[in-house]
Amino acid sequence: MIFYCRGEGEMVEDKPRVGVIMGSKSDWSTMRVAAEVLAEFGITHEARIVSAHRTPEWLREYAQQARSRGLEVVIAGAGGAAHLPGMVAAYTTVPVLGVPVLSQTLQGLDSLLSIVQMPAGVPVATFAIGQAGARNAALFAVALLGRDQPELQQALQAFRQRQARAVMEDTLP
Amino acid sequence: MIFYCRGEGEMVEDKPRVGVIMGSKSDWSTMRVAAEVLAEFGITHEARIVSAHRTPEWLREYAQQARSRGLEVVIAGAGGAAHLPGMVAAYTTVPVLGVPVLSQTLQGLDSLLSIVQMPAGVPVATFAIGQAGARNAALFAVALLGRDQPELQQALQAFRQRQARAVMEDTLP
Amino acid sequence: MIFYCRGEGEMVEDKPRVGVIMGSKSDWSTMRVAAEVLAEFGITHEARIVSAHRTPEWLREYAQQARSRGLEVVIAGAGGAAHLPGMVAAYTTVPVLGVPVLSQTLQGLDSLLSIVQMPAGVPVATFAIGQAGARNAALFAVALLGRDQPELQQALQAFRQRQARAVMEDTLP
Amino acid sequence: MIFYCRGEGEMVEDKPRVGVIMGSKSDWSTMRVAAEVLAEFGITHEARIVSAHRTPEWLREYAQQARSRGLEVVIAGAGGAAHLPGMVAAYTTVPVLGVPVLSQTLQGLDSLLSIVQMPAGVPVATFAIGQAGARNAALFAVALLGRDQPELQQALQAFRQRQARAVMEDTLP
Amino acid sequence: MIFYCRGEGEMVEDKPRVGVIMGSKSDWSTMRVAAEVLAEFGITHEARIVSAHRTPEWLREYAQQARSRGLEVVIAGAGGAAHLPGMVAAYTTVPVLGVPVLSQTLQGLDSLLSIVQMPAGVPVATFAIGQAGARNAALFAVALLGRDQPELQQALQAFRQRQARAVMEDTLP
Amino acid sequence: MIFYCRGEGEMVEDKPRVGVIMGSKSDWSTMRVAAEVLAEFGITHEARIVSAHRTPEWLREYAQQARSRGLEVVIAGAGGAAHLPGMVAAYTTVPVLGVPVLSQTLQGLDSLLSIVQMPAGVPVATFAIGQAGARNAALFAVALLGRDQPELQQALQAFRQRQARAVMEDTLP
Amino acid sequence: MIFYCRGEGEMVEDKPRVGVIMGSKSDWSTMRVAAEVLAEFGITHEARIVSAHRTPEWLREYAQQARSRGLEVVIAGAGGAAHLPGMVAAYTTVPVLGVPVLSQTLQGLDSLLSIVQMPAGVPVATFAIGQAGARNAALFAVALLGRDQPELQQALQAFRQRQARAVMEDTLP
Amino acid sequence: MIFYCRGEGEMVEDKPRVGVIMGSKSDWSTMRVAAEVLAEFGITHEARIVSAHRTPEWLREYAQQARSRGLEVVIAGAGGAAHLPGMVAAYTTVPVLGVPVLSQTLQGLDSLLSIVQMPAGVPVATFAIGQAGARNAALFAVALLGRDQPELQQALQAFRQRQARAVMEDTLP
Repeated sequence: MIFYCRGEGEMVEDKPRVGVIMGSKSDWSTMRVAAEVLAEFGITHEARIVSAHRTPEWLREYAQQARSRGLEVVIAGAGGAAHLPGMVAAYTTVPVLGVPVLSQTLQGLDSLLSIVQMPAGVPVATFAIGQAGARNAALFAVALLGRDQPELQQALQAFRQRQARAVMEDTLP
Repeated sequence: MIFYCRGEGEMVEDKPRVGVIMGSKSDWSTMRVAAEVLAEFGITHEARIVSAHRTPEWLREYAQQARSRGLEVVIAGAGGAAHLPGMVAAYTTVPVLGVPVLSQTLQGLDSLLSIVQMPAGVPVATFAIGQAGARNAALFAVALLGRDQPELQQALQAFRQRQARAVMEDTLP
Repeated sequence: MIFYCRGEGEMVEDKPRVGVIMGSKSDWSTMRVAAEVLAEFGITHEARIVSAHRTPEWLREYAQQARSRGLEVVIAGAGGAAHLPGMVAAYTTVPVLGVPVLSQTLQGLDSLLSIVQMPAGVPVATFAIGQAGARNAALFAVALLGRDQPELQQALQAFRQRQARAVMEDTLP
Repeated sequence: MIFYCRGEGEMVEDKPRVGVIMGSKSDWSTMRVAAEVLAEFGITHEARIVSAHRTPEWLREYAQQARSRGLEVVIAGAGGAAHLPGMVAAYTTVPVLGVPVLSQTLQGLDSLLSIVQMPAGVPVATFAIGQAGARNAALFAVALLGRDQPELQQALQAFRQRQARAVMEDTLP
Repeated sequence: MIFYCRGEGEMVEDKPRVGVIMGSKSDWSTMRVAAEVLAEFGITHEARIVSAHRTPEWLREYAQQARSRGLEVVIAGAGGAAHLPGMVAAYTTVPVLGVPVLSQTLQGLDSLLSIVQMPAGVPVATFAIGQAGARNAALFAVALLGRDQPELQQALQAFRQRQARAVMEDTLP
Repeated sequence: MIFYCRGEGEMVEDKPRVGVIMGSKSDWSTMRVAAEVLAEFGITHEARIVSAHRTPEWLREYAQQARSRGLEVVIAGAGGAAHLPGMVAAYTTVPVLGVPVLSQTLQGLDSLLSIVQMPAGVPVATFAIGQAGARNAALFAVALLGRDQPELQQALQAFRQRQARAVMEDTLP
Repeated sequence: MIFYCRGEGEMVEDKPRVGVIMGSKSDWSTMRVAAEVLAEFGITHEARIVSAHRTPEWLREYAQQARSRGLEVVIAGAGGAAHLPGMVAAYTTVPVLGVPVLSQTLQGLDSLLSIVQMPAGVPVATFAIGQAGARNAALFAVALLGRDQPELQQALQAFRQRQARAVMEDTLP
Repeated sequence: MIFYCRGEGEMVEDKPRVGVIMGSKSDWSTMRVAAEVLAEFGITHEARIVSAHRTPEWLREYAQQARSRGLEVVIAGAGGAAHLPGMVAAYTTVPVLGVPVLSQTLQGLDSLLSIVQMPAGVPVATFAIGQAGARNAALFAVALLGRDQPELQQALQAFRQRQARAVMEDTLP
């Protein structure tokens, strides 16, 4: 289990507001991008391995306690028959953001469909396959938390402006 | 333009908190499911046609004024090369929820990929193709608004319980 | 909840040996084919709705008690982001047979990949999309139960022979 | 032809209970994962090349003699137009578990569909594409054999617990 | 079993030169198009149901006797995990033409891949999904038989010319 | 921003006739092939980064001024949820040629569908995924400009002849 | 062969400027949408059946004479293994616009890939599958012809404005 | 142009019986496998580059003269929007065997569909994507030529037996 806070590597005792979870250790190369964005915006968060299939009890406990532990958003990444985001969403009404991890055999199409095609009644907000999705899930989490936190909203707008400026200043070889 | 409020058909002058937009009138058969869920939860909202390709200026105006008009979430549905959710997200940091509308030729796969595969930097939270996605996007909007509105959160939890009970009481022929 | 036994419509008090479960009532038009095969072979079974997303606690209870309740096989059908078979398999070592139900938007490809692409460690035996899969899952269940029940094995071999004969005797118009 | 028994490399004269077969030598890099799991659980098995297309007579002989030779389960892996699992299942009522081997041109989608989309009447229990599928097919075989072999069932449950514990103890970098 | 000859409905005692086989009776609506083309060109043929999975022994017998019975080409149609063409090809060196029958769940993609993706060593000549493929397989059979039968070759060329003329004379509404 | 003109590396002050734009710097390895073809034909052009999502205002400005700046064709390349070509086309009636850039996760299928599946009313002329598409978009631009510029048309025909001759003279190892 | 001109049904002797061709009569239900748009803009055009496979000589003649007959654009629609657009483009440098016609078996994916995935050297500008693509191909043709015909360009801009206004005035039920 | 004959590298003046053609030089790494099989069976053949798009006249000449030049079979390989096999088939009734070459962007799915989905009336016998398909196309050509050449047929049967024996003798590591 890892805690990041308000800056990369700075450990704090604040309760995490965002849970970044993933089905296996190998998903970390994708999901750490989400953690990095949260750190960049100074949002306390935790990163943990929670496997829907190998540790269903732990998933249930994690999801059921999410709200009482103070988690405001859960970002869940998984590959293949990716059940983690949907099962967390089944146990809590805390918003769940799903990130399809690129699978070895079907280019992540399996991960994507397993996450996004949820039946009516239990939503999972899904993002792009791979690192782009992890990054966007974290930015979306920042937007959600920014709803009642003006300085976060401003930070997000500043990020967008820097991002636009970077495009404008970029040059082709 | 349509306003719903706190109950189906009950028109109020409250400012809409959620914008339900869609690329064309034919998307309404999908997107009205989202409007119905919002009405069920008594959330003021509006439903409007905004075409990314046919009315780009209107899209820009709509997206840029979203926050100042008081919109807290935008639910955008579109089919085919569905650019509406992504372009709204490009103009605002108000959370955008995308609903892929079932297309006539590729079973909605084009709509889904055009919405979910956003590049890093500008997130769109994507839901399932068709009515299930419209319903879930609205439920996700309820969850977001419920973050600082305990009675909404309770309503959502009550909805989940009713939903679970309905499954338990359902009988097979 | 429904009990079938040793013949269609014949209700008995025997404990079910096979659980036929499905994510929603609408899956019954697919899954009843499995129940019919089991009835044809006189295998006590039950048919129930268990939704991974809408009733996760009920799923957990059902799966955890499967073995102690005497279930020897679980046949689970679901559509879209079909998590039911995989989650049952996560909670029990009773063999789980998954049937992808034909979805409305992607021809069942989403159901299939969500069921079959399970990560290493928790297996789900997957069958074809739709009624063919439901039928084959039930026939596979008969084969499993027949391992230590010679008369069932003979019934299965007789079924195969009748099936072959039917092909041989079939005529083209 | 290879025999493994009750521990890797330990050769015994026991009759194999599980046949691990594959369409060509190149499938071994996938299928040996199945053999390793069986060895780990001390289940006598054999690993053999049986090509549906190049050696149809050998396939028929193998499948027809499966039961009389004492095989209780056949795990069959193949790629591309993968006919091996389905044809073995056509010749025997011994349970057949199919493993789609990752193909060079279509990411294993061809292997998967050729195995899983069996017509009603002759079931093949299908697992994930590649090594994950091979591993899960073997674990499923253990569950089948464990139905009347309590110590195997206990070994499987212990495996599951170790697996869960490994997830809980895993740490992110 | 059906014999057609040198004109629709005209039954003769000539030995069939082409075998039109299919996995099930329901494939006939596709495969009769092949039979009609052969009848049109006066080529003796038979149409039969041969199921790879339900009647593997009959398939083997049919394929092994193909050459000695005088069959010069076999046209085999099947759907889903379509093993019929490939297994016939495994048992004989008589040219096998495969027709993927439109499946109910994946638009015939499964049928196509199961037939065309044969491993190196045992060829099946594959044609389009559905009736177009059945028609073309029969025309291809005509071309093969026409190699040493000048009047057939001429008939084929005349057919091509009529076909071209029909396009030239067709008018749009 | 880059200007090429009438020969590689030769910078001129002529106004560009063709705009080669792309969503990010990483698309340049694909899109430079378009620029090279234009340079080869001596067509003044510019190459610029314009991101639909990160710089929507800049996209709008670029597209709205395209005609007045003298651009006669815009070639737009993008990957993933590729909105650039469609949004430029929404703002101008200058012909827009779209090039799907090969994406990391779905082999460019997402890029292709996001560009080609435009709704009726706003066309984007789409070309193949990757460098072949970039090359062909540029050749198509040459053909468009050649409509009232005979020497360009002749150059294009000469190119075609050289291309044909190269095929004729090519030898296999 | 059909001539339309400057208004639906108004026949004139002007030479057609745009050729609307299609592989078979059944494609007309898609391609007439293109003809209607051209008629609406008063552009002389012809609509003809030209089959790449059944009338290759006629295709060659049509394509080779396109320029000398005064055709400025060719819009070619075809389904399945759609070779018509690409082969016309191989014979002429007149711009070719390809429209994938919805196929019966693979939802038009085959038509789309067969048209858009042209190798480098011979471009075909491709549009969406089905009627949307036919409509857009015609609008793109109007844009091309409008390059040196100001009144056409104005008509196109007026069309775009009407189209935008229609969206703005549309109401949801 | 290359001639092989009756053994690798042995050049003879015999007229080629099989034409192995391909759309570009880069396809040779796939298509040489076909040439090697023909050489192995001592069948005179030629290998040539014929591009449907870059050299349509040469394609037409090649196809139209195929029969008179003595070609009995044409094996045509191409990638992407692979029109070569279909266009050769349009010009001749000599049997055409199509080999989809693995494309860089869509795993050969585009090549496969462009070749196999031919409309009714003009058949192309299609084989697997890549080298397996090239090998099988050549083996199929051997079977065709063997119809009136007993020694070839025997050689083919001997090949099949050697192939089966190789499988039987193969050992797993």
